[in-house]
Amino acid sequence: MRVQLPKKYLNDVLGHAERIIPNKSSNPSLSLLGLEVQDDVLSLTGSNMDIDIKARLSADIEGSGKFALPASVFAQVVKSLPGELVELNFEEREVDIRSGSYATKLQLSDSSSLSQFEFPDSYKGSIKGSDLANAFNHVRYAAAVAEYQAIFRGVKVELKDNHTRAIATDGFRLAYYHSSESTGLEGDMVIPARSVEELARILTDDEAKLELTPHDRPSQLSVQSGHYQLNVKLMEGDFPDYSRVIPEQSVVSITLDSKQLLESVSRVAVMADKTTNNRVDLFIQNGSLQITAEGGYGRSQEAIEVSQEGSETEIALAYNSKYLEDALKPIQGEVRLNFSGTTSPSLIASTRDPSYLAMVVPLRT
Amino acid sequence: MRVQLPKKYLNDVLGHAERIIPNKSSNPSLSLLGLEVQDDVLSLTGSNMDIDIKARLSADIEGSGKFALPASVFAQVVKSLPGELVELNFEEREVDIRSGSYATKLQLSDSSSLSQFEFPDSYKGSIKGSDLANAFNHVRYAAAVAEYQAIFRGVKVELKDNHTRAIATDGFRLAYYHSSESTGLEGDMVIPARSVEELARILTDDEAKLELTPHDRPSQLSVQSGHYQLNVKLMEGDFPDYSRVIPEQSVVSITLDSKQLLESVSRVAVMADKTTNNRVDLFIQNGSLQITAEGGYGRSQEAIEVSQEGSETEIALAYNSKYLEDALKPIQGEVRLNFSGTTSPSLIASTRDPSYLAMVVPLRT
Repeated sequence: MRVQLPKKYLNDVLGHAERIIPNKSSNPSLSLLGLEVQDDVLSLTGSNMDIDIKARLSADIEGSGKFALPASVFAQVVKSLPGELVELNFEEREVDIRSGSYATKLQLSDSSSLSQFEFPDSYKGSIKGSDLANAFNHVRYAAAVAEYQAIFRGVKVELKDNHTRAIATDGFRLAYYHSSESTGLEGDMVIPARSVEELARILTDDEAKLELTPHDRPSQLSVQSGHYQLNVKLMEGDFPDYSRVIPEQSVVSITLDSKQLLESVSRVAVMADKTTNNRVDLFIQNGSLQITAEGGYGRSQEAIEVSQEGSETEIALAYNSKYLEDALKPIQGEVRLNFSGTTSPSLIASTRDPSYLAMVVPLRT
Repeated sequence: MRVQLPKKYLNDVLGHAERIIPNKSSNPSLSLLGLEVQDDVLSLTGSNMDIDIKARLSADIEGSGKFALPASVFAQVVKSLPGELVELNFEEREVDIRSGSYATKLQLSDSSSLSQFEFPDSYKGSIKGSDLANAFNHVRYAAAVAEYQAIFRGVKVELKDNHTRAIATDGFRLAYYHSSESTGLEGDMVIPARSVEELARILTDDEAKLELTPHDRPSQLSVQSGHYQLNVKLMEGDFPDYSRVIPEQSVVSITLDSKQLLESVSRVAVMADKTTNNRVDLFIQNGSLQITAEGGYGRSQEAIEVSQEGSETEIALAYNSKYLEDALKPIQGEVRLNFSGTTSPSLIASTRDPSYLAMVVPLRT
């Protein structure tokens, strides 16, 4: 079997596949890339158990067959090729890879050990891929990292007939993105945060088709975007009711430039105690926000003029500076912070894009 | 005492100082930066035992004094400052650092624990700083890394009345740079490779002044470049006689584009066995260079047309691909490779810049 195609197309696909397929695994067949040729299409498949990926590339093809290769070595070879075209000649036990003056013979693995992946024949839902990626990119940071935090390590996605929402929380902060675009599907699901990251990388401006299986109790989200198909395994467990946590009232609220606040917090936090919780203190009074931090090396402060409103004239709060910074990063232009008390969650919102909300729980002082 | 100066100047100095002064040390006074004010000049000093650094900055100054600060925290604070100017107000136990709307109080350390550094009052030698940096940057890669390789972890510098040379070798390869510029000093020395790296970063296009102390048996090279003064501790021990190792005869020699050869070697080496010695094989015959590699995943090859000369019509050799790549990287334009035999060192030279020579010992096949 002989396949010829532009290096760029193959390299792009292998870039995504290489991120998903593990380089080393206790199950060696998991680190394999499957290649299959049928009807002038080269299909590449792989998996990390959480995501199955399949890419279909049109190519100049002679013959047909199914082969298995170590994904990471194949990706490395293709990346380094000198020519614009790459030619793959599959022999019984090896594949001959040629490009320009370069040729390599890469040993084939046993294709019978490849896992079988089932991708949907039809997709009932659809949405602009970049809309979904945008929602994911706004909330991803707030998901928990530690193994024991179970369901908090996922991003909740709500598909309703009139909206699409993504929510992540680790119990100390929460990020929320609401899109009024609907996918046409209905269902709630929790996607592992790492899978959300890979999905966001693959989604483009084009339409992304979506399907949930099984239909009654989805355990898998399937996505088709461009020449990629992905099956994303969903997490099991109850995601907390985020709507109860988002405060509706505030006693003090301030508006200022988001970038200015982000830079001030980062600067003041240089003096914060990194061994505990990176604590920075905020004090708001008379249209002035004073940020201070104190640690083993000394203390720092900075004052910013803000537009201030609310029933109270002043408020003092403390935060983990990293949580404030993460919440501010997705915001362009002005940010509004609503404080409902020194111990209740504070709301951080973009005044330009009402789709995004973040919530940070103050530190106990 | 009050000091005001542009943030940029202070930040540049702290960038260099922070690379040299250890962040943590079993001797805590070693992680301190000394600040001293005299005659409208702010001096900053620090050391890692191998290099002492002193920078002199002119500033707007009131008062005088000597203070000690944790270098890494101070550098981090200054890096993050929002304004163009920074103002330092030294009090008894802390320094108040202000810039724009930001202020921090950083605790001072005990300045009596600062080491005393002696820098020469006069320098007898001089050379254009970038000439010396260029020599260092050409040979640095060939120095050994492992602790037990003693003197091989340094770069030999030869100062003669009609030339300046830098040489590094780890026993398997050697790099040599000859400049016909003289410093006006005479002496041989071996500088630790890490110090060579820091020196190369600080040297500029301007004149660098040099001094060796003590004069009869130098144990220290002192350099003054711009507003920096450096004392660099020299290594003790006998550096091997490199001139005996550089082959003068060759049986086959080839000329080709250096970048093309570098890329081909890197590409073919993807298949080389990384657990042993990254072996690539070169076979030269009839004006063609064939590069091959073989490892656990398969084998690769590439052929390049070359201009071939010599008494023999063909030759086959093997190398550690990393050594070939390192030797080729400094070469712009055409490279000439002289092969004197399958087990004797091969010479790699730039046809454009005869100052640079590299030698690589072939692997035993």
